[in-house]
Amino acid sequence: MATLSKKQEKLIRSLHTRHGCKKHDSCVCEGLRCCSELFEARPDLVEFVVCSENFTSTIAIAEPFFCVPVRDFSRFAVTVNAQGIMAVAARPEMNFVPGADDDFVLALDRVADPGNFGTILRTAKAAGLSGIWFTSGSVDPFNAKVLRSALAAQFSLGLREFANLEAMRTTAEECGFKHFFLSSPRGQSSLFDKPELYERSVIVIGNEASGVASIDAESVSIPMPGNFESINAAQAATVFLFEYVRRTHGTSSRLASRSHVEKSCSLSVER
Amino acid sequence: MATLSKKQEKLIRSLHTRHGCKKHDSCVCEGLRCCSELFEARPDLVEFVVCSENFTSTIAIAEPFFCVPVRDFSRFAVTVNAQGIMAVAARPEMNFVPGADDDFVLALDRVADPGNFGTILRTAKAAGLSGIWFTSGSVDPFNAKVLRSALAAQFSLGLREFANLEAMRTTAEECGFKHFFLSSPRGQSSLFDKPELYERSVIVIGNEASGVASIDAESVSIPMPGNFESINAAQAATVFLFEYVRRTHGTSSRLASRSHVEKSCSLSVER
Repeated sequence: MATLSKKQEKLIRSLHTRHGCKKHDSCVCEGLRCCSELFEARPDLVEFVVCSENFTSTIAIAEPFFCVPVRDFSRFAVTVNAQGIMAVAARPEMNFVPGADDDFVLALDRVADPGNFGTILRTAKAAGLSGIWFTSGSVDPFNAKVLRSALAAQFSLGLREFANLEAMRTTAEECGFKHFFLSSPRGQSSLFDKPELYERSVIVIGNEASGVASIDAESVSIPMPGNFESINAAQAATVFLFEYVRRTHGTSSRLASRSHVEKSCSLSVER
Repeated sequence: MATLSKKQEKLIRSLHTRHGCKKHDSCVCEGLRCCSELFEARPDLVEFVVCSENFTSTIAIAEPFFCVPVRDFSRFAVTVNAQGIMAVAARPEMNFVPGADDDFVLALDRVADPGNFGTILRTAKAAGLSGIWFTSGSVDPFNAKVLRSALAAQFSLGLREFANLEAMRTTAEECGFKHFFLSSPRGQSSLFDKPELYERSVIVIGNEASGVASIDAESVSIPMPGNFESINAAQAATVFLFEYVRRTHGTSSRLASRSHVEKSCSLSVER
């Protein structure tokens, strides 16, 4: 079996830092479920795989792969429980443009907690979304912890970063999107009372501490009868995502036909 | 200003361990928002408060309180960012019995991750629930990390622990609860298609890895059009909680009158 080169060791260590991730345009995907998702969704992006000596699995492991002593493995891993497998992968392009089938885009404004960002990606994928938009100031979606929380949904979801919400809204308008909603605890109306919520719209979830950036757009709230502090960003995103699932997949309440999609988005993509 | 006694120092350190928490029947509440919630909801439980020298705040701090050097404070804190304030409090009794107004009880079966358990408590409180049931094998709800994730909702929510789901169901029946639903990715029906979901029922969310324990009860699923791995336990709980909020607080879809509550629960409480 081949040995990990010094250069590869150095690369892994470098990918522990934010700067290293950007510099090498790569990421580290750790744990069995994340690596499986990567191997299945984007085998073309895998650079190499590292397993600890005692790792056993029934999944097909992408090539090339290297086996290292248990002690070395835990030194390489970023997350606490990396389960004896990690993969270094090139980062996919982040150029998501919604298609005619995308009723809405979920957008994250400076969501900074890796667990929140990752959980939202995982939940969005489960809800059937094809991509997520986010603004600069959010955590790097290819940070090892975000990958871990998302179960590597990053490799099958489209992503796109914007400088700020204004830039995002401009693109949304170019895509023919009609609405731009901000999730806010003090929103003008309740999400449950907005029939047009998912009719070619963008729904923005804000930063954990400061909420959504100030921009002139309609705000929508999640009713909280308990009158407690606002819920966590990932929980708010989940409420919006599964209200969509309910409207489209509940027996009694299917969305009207998609005739409101007048125009397919054929926006050109620049990076 | 009084100095923290050796005995108090020892108590705080002891509360860092699971064993110590049980032995002293106390807990450590860290951070400004958690301490505020504790001081407001249950000032009677506060044993003492510790602030770091550089802590400044506008909230009224419960007595007795002690100021310690910054370095000492971080040694005492369990969570990474304790924000310069912590309180040692007695644990409230965990004897929650739902009242006639409680349409349903959310129950957690061996939910082991502190972040998940805490987030569920916070979200349940925001959704207006008055209590949560859980089974033995779950993380201790008064663990410092669970308190932190829940923003100390533990002090205003009722809680109750059961040996297992069978014991829980027996109590539910004694309370006159009619349904016992298990959340499962392979449930018999979708939560969106069950009109009786919140009509005096218990809804159980299972362990992160193994799901709900095997028990003869109806299972309910959350539709996942994305066909991805199941969502996180806290996200599943959120979907059930806010589907309830929608049915009770959405304009177009209020629950029928509560005439189905035939019997108020007057179960006697034993610890």
